[in-house]
Amino acid sequence: MRDYVKNYESKTGKSKRLYFRSTKVFPGGISHNIRYFEPYPFFVNAAKGMQLRDVDGNKYTDYWMGHWALILGHSAKPVADALAAQVRKGILYGTVNDVSVELAETIQKLMPRAETMRFSSTGSEATMYAVRLARAKTGRRVIAKAIGGWHGFNTTLMQTVNYPFEVEEGPGLVQDEGQYVESIPFNNLDASLKVLETIKEDLACIIIEPVLGGAGCIPPVDGYLQGLQEFARKNGSLFILDEIVTGFRLSLRGAMSVYRLEPDLFTLGKICGGGMPIGIVCGDKEIMSLADPVSRRDKDARCAIGGGTFSANPVTMAAGLATLNVLKKNRQVYSKINRLGGITRKGLSKIFAEAKVPCQVTGLGSIFLTHFRKDMVQDASDAATSDRELLIRYHLALMADHGIFFLPTKMGAFSYAHDEGDVRRLLAATEKIVQSGLFKQGS
Amino acid sequence: MRDYVKNYESKTGKSKRLYFRSTKVFPGGISHNIRYFEPYPFFVNAAKGMQLRDVDGNKYTDYWMGHWALILGHSAKPVADALAAQVRKGILYGTVNDVSVELAETIQKLMPRAETMRFSSTGSEATMYAVRLARAKTGRRVIAKAIGGWHGFNTTLMQTVNYPFEVEEGPGLVQDEGQYVESIPFNNLDASLKVLETIKEDLACIIIEPVLGGAGCIPPVDGYLQGLQEFARKNGSLFILDEIVTGFRLSLRGAMSVYRLEPDLFTLGKICGGGMPIGIVCGDKEIMSLADPVSRRDKDARCAIGGGTFSANPVTMAAGLATLNVLKKNRQVYSKINRLGGITRKGLSKIFAEAKVPCQVTGLGSIFLTHFRKDMVQDASDAATSDRELLIRYHLALMADHGIFFLPTKMGAFSYAHDEGDVRRLLAATEKIVQSGLFKQGS
Repeated sequence: MRDYVKNYESKTGKSKRLYFRSTKVFPGGISHNIRYFEPYPFFVNAAKGMQLRDVDGNKYTDYWMGHWALILGHSAKPVADALAAQVRKGILYGTVNDVSVELAETIQKLMPRAETMRFSSTGSEATMYAVRLARAKTGRRVIAKAIGGWHGFNTTLMQTVNYPFEVEEGPGLVQDEGQYVESIPFNNLDASLKVLETIKEDLACIIIEPVLGGAGCIPPVDGYLQGLQEFARKNGSLFILDEIVTGFRLSLRGAMSVYRLEPDLFTLGKICGGGMPIGIVCGDKEIMSLADPVSRRDKDARCAIGGGTFSANPVTMAAGLATLNVLKKNRQVYSKINRLGGITRKGLSKIFAEAKVPCQVTGLGSIFLTHFRKDMVQDASDAATSDRELLIRYHLALMADHGIFFLPTKMGAFSYAHDEGDVRRLLAATEKIVQSGLFKQGS
Repeated sequence: MRDYVKNYESKTGKSKRLYFRSTKVFPGGISHNIRYFEPYPFFVNAAKGMQLRDVDGNKYTDYWMGHWALILGHSAKPVADALAAQVRKGILYGTVNDVSVELAETIQKLMPRAETMRFSSTGSEATMYAVRLARAKTGRRVIAKAIGGWHGFNTTLMQTVNYPFEVEEGPGLVQDEGQYVESIPFNNLDASLKVLETIKEDLACIIIEPVLGGAGCIPPVDGYLQGLQEFARKNGSLFILDEIVTGFRLSLRGAMSVYRLEPDLFTLGKICGGGMPIGIVCGDKEIMSLADPVSRRDKDARCAIGGGTFSANPVTMAAGLATLNVLKKNRQVYSKINRLGGITRKGLSKIFAEAKVPCQVTGLGSIFLTHFRKDMVQDASDAATSDRELLIRYHLALMADHGIFFLPTKMGAFSYAHDEGDVRRLLAATEKIVQSGLFKQGS
């Protein structure tokens, strides 16, 4: 037994018992696959700023930050205040409401390509509606996505998500339903265009994350996204940017401003809801108007998208608005978190280089991930074929021995609640783990 | 112009201006199609108990109750207190947490057929995962649903939802994807079995709401659901009950207890989240275990279902737990809301019968809806071919002249915050509207 596992177990007895109870109510003890890790995940019962606290009283500096949604940190005061006020005013009006208009107007002002939008409750819904709108607009069927691209658990886009990518994503998905999804290799424009050429007549859209998120925190190479966009334009297909992770994360105006892209539609989520459930599909108002139930009364003229019971609920709206208002008024949020990201990437690279541990630190702005491999990481296969076991051990050792939490194998994100001290502690912990010899145990 | 429309417009000037702003950010000014009604919906900015308040200060007795989710009323104290406390402790841990285990155990205890469960954030996700699990379990592809049955906006189940049911649900849905969904006529067992016979070899599951909700508040006739369940059992197909509306609404143990059903899987939502976003797929633990990421490491052995970023978030968990704890400890909640439902159905029937207005009042327990037609309402077509224009006028007149809110054409629901006085006011308002001659204006 490795020491850090022993150490983890010795400090997390209550979590261990809770995990056992949890397996009696949830298959595998979790409600989201990636939240499980060995020997068992710790159970959180409070979080504040950059810190998670588990039921045993252990504290962790959090780099997972609510699936990267909490750009201001856990229970940031302006957000918690807005929520506390809202829950007294109403939880679910079930009707149109003033806060939703304010949030939408705020987004539209910051991201003018969001000419109009539709609020739903999850990212998985937003991407599902985006590709449905693309099919409605073009009258075509095929959707192109990146190998390893992650757009949620909806049936349409649940393709080529997990390594090995050529293997179907498990039982329960009907093969015929997958026939209209084609996958392209991220960051390889020539190969991508070659695939797109073969399906161009029926190509409704290309949907892509500007930075591969779940697949390994992989930024685009110069010209890749622009090349896809150009192909889509020329081909009468829509270019859809999935900014659920990057929107309001890389900049106040999204990755589309960083990479100078002009998507026809794009999706938002996470940060826009201040931690509360949200997904947004937005973009060109002509395309969005296909879903307008007022001007399109007959169902065969209208693209049927949700909505949903919880769409535009005032609690999510209040949390999202409070978050965006802080971001809007405090441009130093981005300079701070991007600086922390930069020194972390540099610091980690240096440590592993000096220790002669083959490692690539990917990311940009406030997001980063270590990949234990010699060669560059340019696509999802590179990330998946890195030494994942070593990455899991590294993340577990950080968690167990140093109170630093990365969801094992997942990229880290800085929030405004982190500071230079956190970076120093992360780097110092990493040095200690290197010195402990963990990276030399047969990988 | 009819008087009540004038009256509505004269009282809702701020809403009118907000609606105009709203059309500049949302197609049709809404984020959920059914929330639009003519001339424009009022904008809510506070809600308490059984009451909605709009931005112009108008108050409405609410029978929509957050898509029927708010069984304890708007911002019920135990729920609002739990939420206010939770938002200070954390909004989105992004990890496993103790509250989610407590909520799941509470559900499991009340509904023992929920042997294990998976939390997601919307009902649309829960039903999508239920049918995915059914396909994984059976290795078959076809899903049977009721004509008019509503299971959310997911691609698979977005079939035969709106009248005319034989017309496709609009552009953007790929026909090939619909080929594996067959629709059966609700409440007609012989005709339903005839359809099921034709597809039985490839029939993965039957998914059905025990009471048709969105399609018109239509209870099942004796033996219908049991007949479907029996067919599914014999055929090796799964019987899935969609209890997103009825779960914890009709009784503490769901419609499955009322109708003595034993579904293999069922879905919950709405009430279980106390108004916050939730969807749950649950049932037989063998079937649910197909989604277990711990025992099924290889992706080709595992049915890939979410989850999602916001699944099991502590805010939803706290609101749901607070709600179920009240319901558990106060059995009089159901006796009260069911009594209110009963006297309302009886009272409305009497008023319309005496006025010789052809009307059927459907529903059971705390839910009800008026259908302006002579004959019984037994399926979605009956509801859709009732005089819908008259129903809209009735609901608008209630709203404009009497401060009583039904989302036009949608069923009403009582909460624990309503009382006999509300029923009296609803009946008195209905009598006045009858006397005004509204039901005689050419329909």
